[in-house]
Amino acid sequence: MRKLGVGVLGVGEMGKRHAENLRSLVPEARLVAVADASTERARQVAAELEIEHSYSSLDAMLECKDLDAVLIATPDKFHAQAVGIAARAGKDILCEKPLALNLADAHAALRAVSRAGRRLQIGFMRRYDPAYRAAMKRVEAGEIGVPVIFKSVGRDKDAPPLAAYQANVNGMVFYNNTIHDFDLARWLVRDEITEVHAYTTVAIRPEVAQYGDVVASVVNLQYQQGAIGNVESYVQAAYGYDVRTEIVGSKGSILVGSLRQTAATFLTAGGGVQTLADHFLTRFADAYLAEVRDFVQNILNDRPVRVTGEDGLKALGIAVAAENSHVQGKPARVTVGRSSASA
Amino acid sequence: MRKLGVGVLGVGEMGKRHAENLRSLVPEARLVAVADASTERARQVAAELEIEHSYSSLDAMLECKDLDAVLIATPDKFHAQAVGIAARAGKDILCEKPLALNLADAHAALRAVSRAGRRLQIGFMRRYDPAYRAAMKRVEAGEIGVPVIFKSVGRDKDAPPLAAYQANVNGMVFYNNTIHDFDLARWLVRDEITEVHAYTTVAIRPEVAQYGDVVASVVNLQYQQGAIGNVESYVQAAYGYDVRTEIVGSKGSILVGSLRQTAATFLTAGGGVQTLADHFLTRFADAYLAEVRDFVQNILNDRPVRVTGEDGLKALGIAVAAENSHVQGKPARVTVGRSSASA
Amino acid sequence: MRKLGVGVLGVGEMGKRHAENLRSLVPEARLVAVADASTERARQVAAELEIEHSYSSLDAMLECKDLDAVLIATPDKFHAQAVGIAARAGKDILCEKPLALNLADAHAALRAVSRAGRRLQIGFMRRYDPAYRAAMKRVEAGEIGVPVIFKSVGRDKDAPPLAAYQANVNGMVFYNNTIHDFDLARWLVRDEITEVHAYTTVAIRPEVAQYGDVVASVVNLQYQQGAIGNVESYVQAAYGYDVRTEIVGSKGSILVGSLRQTAATFLTAGGGVQTLADHFLTRFADAYLAEVRDFVQNILNDRPVRVTGEDGLKALGIAVAAENSHVQGKPARVTVGRSSASA
Amino acid sequence: MRKLGVGVLGVGEMGKRHAENLRSLVPEARLVAVADASTERARQVAAELEIEHSYSSLDAMLECKDLDAVLIATPDKFHAQAVGIAARAGKDILCEKPLALNLADAHAALRAVSRAGRRLQIGFMRRYDPAYRAAMKRVEAGEIGVPVIFKSVGRDKDAPPLAAYQANVNGMVFYNNTIHDFDLARWLVRDEITEVHAYTTVAIRPEVAQYGDVVASVVNLQYQQGAIGNVESYVQAAYGYDVRTEIVGSKGSILVGSLRQTAATFLTAGGGVQTLADHFLTRFADAYLAEVRDFVQNILNDRPVRVTGEDGLKALGIAVAAENSHVQGKPARVTVGRSSASA
Repeated sequence: MRKLGVGVLGVGEMGKRHAENLRSLVPEARLVAVADASTERARQVAAELEIEHSYSSLDAMLECKDLDAVLIATPDKFHAQAVGIAARAGKDILCEKPLALNLADAHAALRAVSRAGRRLQIGFMRRYDPAYRAAMKRVEAGEIGVPVIFKSVGRDKDAPPLAAYQANVNGMVFYNNTIHDFDLARWLVRDEITEVHAYTTVAIRPEVAQYGDVVASVVNLQYQQGAIGNVESYVQAAYGYDVRTEIVGSKGSILVGSLRQTAATFLTAGGGVQTLADHFLTRFADAYLAEVRDFVQNILNDRPVRVTGEDGLKALGIAVAAENSHVQGKPARVTVGRSSASA
Repeated sequence: MRKLGVGVLGVGEMGKRHAENLRSLVPEARLVAVADASTERARQVAAELEIEHSYSSLDAMLECKDLDAVLIATPDKFHAQAVGIAARAGKDILCEKPLALNLADAHAALRAVSRAGRRLQIGFMRRYDPAYRAAMKRVEAGEIGVPVIFKSVGRDKDAPPLAAYQANVNGMVFYNNTIHDFDLARWLVRDEITEVHAYTTVAIRPEVAQYGDVVASVVNLQYQQGAIGNVESYVQAAYGYDVRTEIVGSKGSILVGSLRQTAATFLTAGGGVQTLADHFLTRFADAYLAEVRDFVQNILNDRPVRVTGEDGLKALGIAVAAENSHVQGKPARVTVGRSSASA
Repeated sequence: MRKLGVGVLGVGEMGKRHAENLRSLVPEARLVAVADASTERARQVAAELEIEHSYSSLDAMLECKDLDAVLIATPDKFHAQAVGIAARAGKDILCEKPLALNLADAHAALRAVSRAGRRLQIGFMRRYDPAYRAAMKRVEAGEIGVPVIFKSVGRDKDAPPLAAYQANVNGMVFYNNTIHDFDLARWLVRDEITEVHAYTTVAIRPEVAQYGDVVASVVNLQYQQGAIGNVESYVQAAYGYDVRTEIVGSKGSILVGSLRQTAATFLTAGGGVQTLADHFLTRFADAYLAEVRDFVQNILNDRPVRVTGEDGLKALGIAVAAENSHVQGKPARVTVGRSSASA
Repeated sequence: MRKLGVGVLGVGEMGKRHAENLRSLVPEARLVAVADASTERARQVAAELEIEHSYSSLDAMLECKDLDAVLIATPDKFHAQAVGIAARAGKDILCEKPLALNLADAHAALRAVSRAGRRLQIGFMRRYDPAYRAAMKRVEAGEIGVPVIFKSVGRDKDAPPLAAYQANVNGMVFYNNTIHDFDLARWLVRDEITEVHAYTTVAIRPEVAQYGDVVASVVNLQYQQGAIGNVESYVQAAYGYDVRTEIVGSKGSILVGSLRQTAATFLTAGGGVQTLADHFLTRFADAYLAEVRDFVQNILNDRPVRVTGEDGLKALGIAVAAENSHVQGKPARVTVGRSSASA
């Protein structure tokens, strides 16, 4: 069996998970190298996963001769540039969300991919989650009728430390968290969002304001064909990691999401208690694996990827509009700027 | 035991329930009369409940000598005027929501109540629901910390027939449905809303547009002290009656609402199936009873009512702002107009 | 409208609830009297419910001339005798479970009812609970196919105080609690139980052993047509009142029961917490009302009652067999003794 | 890193899963060989997992020189003998449940292990499930107080085909299914079962009776220190795979188990629908992995295994007693025969 040689760029929490999946759980792939700005971290992950090559930069890794594809899991700020470099080196790419932190960078990255004739997939892994897939199947089968309302909630348990804000390598909440919901909003409703309105708050952590970020947001959505929606994000939900989505249609409705971490309930005089989900790597473990495996299989078989660069661009356009609304205090139109060259 | 003599104005579905509760389940009250624009309906309900007096107007009912208080459950359009008449006749009042369909009428009604020195309670019955009360208790005890986000969903199963729109006696969805969530938004967060932004849709029932109404809406909320929120309304959820509320704080979160109608689950090869709630009179049966009983007891004991005319006015102010936002396509400030004379 | 005049014998917690329902919530009934061995208690309940007559014995109450029917809610020991007296006085009867504490008394009671040509209903109120009724409807519609297994759990929150054991007016757990499950076992499976096997424990409260009682039991059931089952009882479940039933068939299964008391969930770092049900008068409030109303309507309309004396006898037969198995340490055949004269 | 060389004997559905886990997901192990009575199946699995060696018998596989341990996943009938052979060859062993189909074989197997000075773990994987582990942690922390009642339900979706009965290589339901619950009954209550009573039924599939099997059973349990319990098994639950356990104590109770397969709920006019779990390899995927990894780590580090041969023997003793009760129609004492030589 031919295997796809993959290198992982960025082996923090997320990149390491991708590397582990590629190393052990995707029979069609061979993890050939990891790279990280921290040479030490790259070396350590390589040792742990028992692979030969570790590098301290993408450029260095691209020299590795068995490399067919690159998985990009750096801080968000470096995504677009890395996509461009990898594409120009002739590699296929799976890039973590967001594709970029602004539309110009996104367009540049997509152009590079397009010119190189490579494939680019964006890491919207929720599309691979069994519950979301089951929901989409019902939508496609017409079981909910015409979509009327889209709702999504995304709450993280632990807000980023202030140091992360100071490092300034990730975008604000809309780029980093809500972008998952923006992608679902397009995907599940099968329509485009034309305008958004955002309220935000820094109430319980005013010190993030100076970095342009917020702790919570609610974003109203208007769709092209008449549906409406709202997505909420909160980066420090004390109780756990909580992702829930609803798509409400003329004939029925689908709820995706559950608060339970395990199937155990404890009953005492104080009430019935359930352990709550607390981390995206746990909640979406299956999705991350299915995502990377699907990417590998599609590249190997010369099939289109399932979550395209265009999807990355369009979700980014919604995030940009949400930020504009937040800054300007009024609704903002969604646009992706000049006509994009799709991946 | 002295009993409060109560007359019910308007004995449609809602008013009849109030009459039944007063007749049988509130030992401190005596249902002395019912009135309805339909003489026939008034007579029939009086016969069913075995009470002596039925009338075809409020004015007529006010002649009835044992009447201490009036419960108003007419179509929405007539609420404010009826409040004024009953107040001037020296009666205490429990008025269904909304207090009025515009701020001027609301102020006039409150002034009448104030001048007459009577008490006015607004029918936000959810505040009496055991689950909402339990939530509020935790909020008051500080268990969720500082409120950050308020969310609420209100979905009705059966949209009003077109005839109801043509009769033009009720307000659009914000006045008729969402106003419950606007009240909860103030009550549970214990703060005022300063601005709102609404998207609406008539997508699956365009014919309601000519009556100024919509089938679904999402309304973003901004609070005075920094919290944010969103409330969604949908008047024809095929699957049932669905009211769910979340209040998310710095230390914890509370969810109110459940989809189940009964405690039975049916398991087959097609999945696990539960019967869903389908009507507000079922879901909030306990709340309606607790509401009217609390009103009666407070009036009898000369205590302030728990949900004041001021509460009715402020929720109305939010509904007016939501309609403004809907019409103008931009955020709208919340105001109650001239300084109100509280009930 | 003709109303059924009803007197309630025994106005402790249970009887008082029946009296309240009859007084206010059953339009077809008139509560004409209450009686209780405690004259004081009878007088107080009569005052509270604003009825004229209170008595200190059934014999005295039977003199009351507007009495058509008697509801018996005394301690269990007095049920059978009270049924006999009321029947001989020509009254129709709704008797709380169990019909009697032994088969001879049960037969005597049924004979009296039969000779007097009156009607007797036994207070298995679960049959009137919306969830159990919904389950039965599916069973009758053949939706679960052939019944294979019946399971039921009945847990009380607060065990009886030792004084109750000393008073010796109620039977052991099988007669007082499990009898509900024995009745459901017959009703939902629509078959008779032929043999049972019981294990019991006094582990955490050994002092009840001297009164012949236990704190928990598991009873295996064998049905005539091949199904099997198990019912568990526990009289001091620290966490709440918990009644759950399953009927498992060849095509599907039905679960009845839910642990939640309200529709509120509290989410904190310690987990998701729900308030649990804690009392049968709360959990089965609707069922108690539907039960007494159905009795009244059937008597008024000269229709058979829905839960017959025969049902009371047969459930008692199972309880007797369970006690025999408990005492003898081996399976026991179920019998109701001499052929019974059905009510 | 030194790795444990493991060979898997029997690569049907279960053994193949173990082989996959060992091949990819247990970094401390090396899957060196598979063996199966079907040479073809062994060869195919070896090819799929890209390992060199496949054999048609345990004896042949034992020749393979890198083999440190053997995982036995043959039909039940061959477990005990395979344990003996592997032990005498000096291998450590992870053996699927049940250890044997009778006590003599079990003792022989344990003696062989003991004499060889090897380690034996029994495949009661539920002990490794996150929910069961969380439950056990609470039990050990004393959070439920004194255990009073143990309950467990185990339902399979698809009953074995008749051919499986004819092949006669597995034991009846108590050995094949209920033995998991018998193990949990000992483990969670931390006490031994002294006596059992079983009712069984073949009602909806009478043709299995000739093979000595049943389609459903309820087994009452009596514990040494006073607790009681019941376990139910059903081999053809039309609706899915359903494993639920309760341990009820003096201070609280724990429920393990959930009916949901995914986190999606579909709401329509017909009710709320959830997809149900349908297979043990899905429900217990995490547990199977954790089990084999724990075995490997303990062997490598010369630590005792967590689920011992003694545990296998004692669960078997309960199954034997359950069969005796089923055959004799009366309670049966639990015994493991002659004093066992623990593994």
